[in-house]
Amino acid sequence: MKERGILIVVSGFSGSGKGTLMKELLERYEDRYALSVSATTRKPREGEIHGREYFFLSRDEFEKMIAKDELIEYAKYVENYYGTPRAYVEEKLEEGKDVILEIEIQGALNIKKMFPDALLLFVTPPDADELRRRLVGRGTETMDVIKSRMDRACEEAEGMENYDYLIVNDSLDECVREMHAIIQGEHRRTSRNREFVKRIKEDLERLKGEE
Amino acid sequence: MKERGILIVVSGFSGSGKGTLMKELLERYEDRYALSVSATTRKPREGEIHGREYFFLSRDEFEKMIAKDELIEYAKYVENYYGTPRAYVEEKLEEGKDVILEIEIQGALNIKKMFPDALLLFVTPPDADELRRRLVGRGTETMDVIKSRMDRACEEAEGMENYDYLIVNDSLDECVREMHAIIQGEHRRTSRNREFVKRIKEDLERLKGEE
Repeated sequence: MKERGILIVVSGFSGSGKGTLMKELLERYEDRYALSVSATTRKPREGEIHGREYFFLSRDEFEKMIAKDELIEYAKYVENYYGTPRAYVEEKLEEGKDVILEIEIQGALNIKKMFPDALLLFVTPPDADELRRRLVGRGTETMDVIKSRMDRACEEAEGMENYDYLIVNDSLDECVREMHAIIQGEHRRTSRNREFVKRIKEDLERLKGEE
Repeated sequence: MKERGILIVVSGFSGSGKGTLMKELLERYEDRYALSVSATTRKPREGEIHGREYFFLSRDEFEKMIAKDELIEYAKYVENYYGTPRAYVEEKLEEGKDVILEIEIQGALNIKKMFPDALLLFVTPPDADELRRRLVGRGTETMDVIKSRMDRACEEAEGMENYDYLIVNDSLDECVREMHAIIQGEHRRTSRNREFVKRIKEDLERLKGEE
């Protein structure tokens, strides 16, 4: 029997290099991970492909999925729905793959409530100075742009302490290895191996009885 | 400022290769770990060296350490005291080293109660069959020997589910690397990085105020 995969939620600061990190992780360990693609009712932007960035659905299609409980979580931002289709996630977890959802804080906390075993990872630059540099840029941005990035970062930092691990993105290569190591380590958590513990204990009792 | 080390408790089945594993881990990453040596009032066995296997103390010396709160935990088995001297552990944690205590279940749970941040690792063979082979041996053991090993293994398995991680010792080399990766991953736990989270949040608020 194959060990079931772990449901992994990845959030983080904009400009933390989260996207590149995910891409690299999935390429390097493609047999271990599966990336869940969200569904949304917002219109595709240029270059976005149905089934890659998002599944682009009509409002009606989306609401049908809600009604049939086909989403493991969903939320509405600015008149548009965003959600995570259940079927793909379940199928990949069953196959033993760790399934990665790249979603924001509110969705992440909803997931954790429904799936207490979900692993929440937060991607962050190595320190506040570096975060500041990424927010402020090279002095070529308008005040408005900086202000809006700042507001966004404050929102993103809001629930940081509810995540299980901080993924500190300093060097990409090292960060990918570290993220993989953290996830692999989680597979060894006693709380994820209750069956193993139960089996060893039963076996010992049985052996004792045989003596 | 150096990050404080993690207090690590290692327990496991006799014959799980725990001793070899610790030795290898400490050799391979000697700048990262420190092994705490226990104090005891039992007499040294042949080949045991004061300060290496144990600090061998008189009952009077041991009880003075208890009275002065110089032990972070202690227990009495079969008329002898066993305990963990506080000074060495504190000094090494301050230096940023992860300090390893090799102790049994009761001591481990005492540590966890007093130091909720302690990391509890349990070393086990890969499955019950392998454990059975190690217990029963090659058919050359007396029934008494097997029975006493079996009893001991049952006791050792008792609190397994209270440990944070299972360290599955199949191949030594891989197991050492995995154990190291698990411990390094733990350093990234959000709960161990409250200062970092606080600082980033404060910095963001400050930057926002400056705009």
